[in-house]
Amino acid sequence: MPDPTLPPALLHALTQLLGPRGLLTAAEDIAPHLADWRNLYRGATPCVIRPGTTEELAHAVTLCAEARVAMVPQGGNTSMVGGAVPDESGRQVVVSLARLNRIRAIDPVDMTMTAEAGVVLKAAQNAAAEAGCLFPLSLGAEGSATIGGVLSTNAGGNTTVRYGNARELMLGLEAVLPDGGIWHGLRRLRKDNTGYALRHLFVGAEGTLGFITAASLKMFPRARDTALGFCAVADEDAALSLFRRFRDRDDSAVRAFEYMSGQGVDFCVRHIEGIALPLGHRADHYVLVDLASSRPDAGLRDMAEAVLTEAMEAGLVLDAVLAESDAQAARIWRIREEHPEAQKRAGASVKNDVSVPVSRVPDLIRRSSEALRTLIPGSRPVPFGHIGDGNIHMNLEQPEGMDAAAFLARSHDIMDCVNAIVRDLDGSFSAEHGIGRLKTDMMESWRGGVELGAMRAIKDALDPHGLMNPGKVFP
Amino acid sequence: MPDPTLPPALLHALTQLLGPRGLLTAAEDIAPHLADWRNLYRGATPCVIRPGTTEELAHAVTLCAEARVAMVPQGGNTSMVGGAVPDESGRQVVVSLARLNRIRAIDPVDMTMTAEAGVVLKAAQNAAAEAGCLFPLSLGAEGSATIGGVLSTNAGGNTTVRYGNARELMLGLEAVLPDGGIWHGLRRLRKDNTGYALRHLFVGAEGTLGFITAASLKMFPRARDTALGFCAVADEDAALSLFRRFRDRDDSAVRAFEYMSGQGVDFCVRHIEGIALPLGHRADHYVLVDLASSRPDAGLRDMAEAVLTEAMEAGLVLDAVLAESDAQAARIWRIREEHPEAQKRAGASVKNDVSVPVSRVPDLIRRSSEALRTLIPGSRPVPFGHIGDGNIHMNLEQPEGMDAAAFLARSHDIMDCVNAIVRDLDGSFSAEHGIGRLKTDMMESWRGGVELGAMRAIKDALDPHGLMNPGKVFP
Repeated sequence: MPDPTLPPALLHALTQLLGPRGLLTAAEDIAPHLADWRNLYRGATPCVIRPGTTEELAHAVTLCAEARVAMVPQGGNTSMVGGAVPDESGRQVVVSLARLNRIRAIDPVDMTMTAEAGVVLKAAQNAAAEAGCLFPLSLGAEGSATIGGVLSTNAGGNTTVRYGNARELMLGLEAVLPDGGIWHGLRRLRKDNTGYALRHLFVGAEGTLGFITAASLKMFPRARDTALGFCAVADEDAALSLFRRFRDRDDSAVRAFEYMSGQGVDFCVRHIEGIALPLGHRADHYVLVDLASSRPDAGLRDMAEAVLTEAMEAGLVLDAVLAESDAQAARIWRIREEHPEAQKRAGASVKNDVSVPVSRVPDLIRRSSEALRTLIPGSRPVPFGHIGDGNIHMNLEQPEGMDAAAFLARSHDIMDCVNAIVRDLDGSFSAEHGIGRLKTDMMESWRGGVELGAMRAIKDALDPHGLMNPGKVFP
Repeated sequence: MPDPTLPPALLHALTQLLGPRGLLTAAEDIAPHLADWRNLYRGATPCVIRPGTTEELAHAVTLCAEARVAMVPQGGNTSMVGGAVPDESGRQVVVSLARLNRIRAIDPVDMTMTAEAGVVLKAAQNAAAEAGCLFPLSLGAEGSATIGGVLSTNAGGNTTVRYGNARELMLGLEAVLPDGGIWHGLRRLRKDNTGYALRHLFVGAEGTLGFITAASLKMFPRARDTALGFCAVADEDAALSLFRRFRDRDDSAVRAFEYMSGQGVDFCVRHIEGIALPLGHRADHYVLVDLASSRPDAGLRDMAEAVLTEAMEAGLVLDAVLAESDAQAARIWRIREEHPEAQKRAGASVKNDVSVPVSRVPDLIRRSSEALRTLIPGSRPVPFGHIGDGNIHMNLEQPEGMDAAAFLARSHDIMDCVNAIVRDLDGSFSAEHGIGRLKTDMMESWRGGVELGAMRAIKDALDPHGLMNPGKVFP
């Protein structure tokens, strides 16, 4: 590993500006910022900058930019694709937004919240709830992931089918540009057609165009009626058909609709304490349907019963249970939430976060599972995820008894295998996890030509010295 | 007016490429393309290019770009801000997308439609309905406005409170860039995090970055239960309170929530045939609430009655009627839809399409009305529009008996007067109409500095010769 160093004049200026709380240089303080959550990468950095205000960040960015030092924004460091860690050169400075963690304003009439980048997603949800409202973005890492991170990566999660991705929940941004300029774009307007949608450019740019420092976010009325079902379904087509039946009945009530394979649920039952199958018999395919409405008299339980009864008569649903309590609903959700942990305990696995048009989800699951079993005999496909978004985590668990390292050495073969099918189905090689460092080499073949050319032109225009999160997104 | 000319070699090449249907040069054919809908501007052009395919357009753009000839995209030519007409120089070529008018695909499982730029909005709505679905974008000009136009301007309209602006209804784009390159971005995915959100950059760019040639659009389940109310309310605060009561009861059911002033409704009753006040007594403030659900058993009429009864008891609502039939609902909607025409018949008027945070709508209406009456004694404010979006058309009708030209000469004073209040309320000087040519001189003071700098950098990066719709958006 090279010895990370910083120009002495810059280090001095940053020390003066930020003080000991705002600048970490000791190896033990820096260490947690160098590796990603999945342990795919381990980088090096001379220091971690932790500004306490937007102005402090802007000043630090100006200093780094003048010294042509590259910067890596980091929120909760929960990227699935190595998007928030520095490379191995030791020349990239990590900039943690963790201390920008205030909720600046919350307004239940406007239904908006203004939160700084370092606010943890769960804290934003809680703040909305305290104001009697709902901030609907919800995902596995919500206890660590931050507002800046979920916006920079346009995170999805479980409620996208109803509320959209992080992008759709954002009304305005404050950002620090690569030259240290502050953009004050924290508007909280539902309509504002005044030039280019810069806010949408920063969302999903994965920190390659600057730092999101705060955001105006949409809130919604909280749920006053809910219903949650867990169903064994006949096959992948039945899972999709059941989604359509619920969507057509009341699209606004479908808060989440998740597919799980028999294999994945088996792993959860076997490896996670406290998880039991809530149905009498094992099946090969399950769905979780979560309904919610702000109307106390929405009658969602009756509606769910009616839809499920009809679907049973049509042979789509084999068995189903409706949660009798919030506690039971939470236990059912745990089956879905513990899929990543259960896979981890079952051995080595490779993740494929892909999407296709909704109608093609059954084909995606069937064709990918078959191709993966052929590619690596004995391997166990664990497809699960968001049917309503066409976003399936087409994961693959190693064969029993195979050496984990030998299996992981096939990671790119596995991704290529799934991606070839995804391409054939008009899908995308990254649905909600983004590109980060892991998928940069796929960009040329999937987004090359005019599209990648336009992206590069924008990148060069806003970050001419290439200082923002280099090595991410672009091949 | 200067004599519009084109380099002879370019004219020859375009004639060869496009044929007589694709290239208009006769004065009488060109004339309809030179003036905007509001008759604010009248430009000149040597020809109107009307390509029949995306490839033909790309070829024509390449030819124009090589000759450094500026291009003005035109859809239905219904811009409120002169965004789609050429300037007076006679050197800008009009490019009409009218012949790109196919619906390429429609899928009720994916709930997506792929429509070319020249498809008229109403035709897109009809195609969705024929497939058993809903394409919810709805606005006064829907019989002429095109998909390319509503996306390029990020149009809003009546259903934004439920379904968002045009931007939120778009999943992917096909576009021709300023150099003639075709971007094939017609993805129909709900999740796709693969680099910068180019599609969001083109939406709302008002044709200054290239031509949108086709779009993948979201559809929704059609409404199976509806309820429509017309209410006299106590004041502006009561209008907002009533909106909140409906939103909190069932935000997903509120398809539209429109404010109208007593003055505006008076104009409609007086000047438009077939419009009558559906209540027993005149009031100073009205709202129209339109509820819809895909659930046939949503019970929206009962819900509306319950909310209105409570609101009457609270003194918010003075009188209310619920439509007894679709025909009556249509008659009530006409009161809102005919506001622009009624104002036109009442004399000269100035439009202010502004937005503020939802909580500040009452302040906006009250303060602007008072300031405008002071600015021009005898003038008649006609505020109306979308309370739930914070988007009020803060229009002003001339004083009775005043010379129309003398009143219109005060247009910029009137806009400045409203905009000063909008700024104080953290609002925007253009909510849904965009910048076009009319509001370019406001950009520096509202979006100047870092934001406008970033916009210019992007514009220069993608359109280095400044050929796309010059004189629009940028000051």
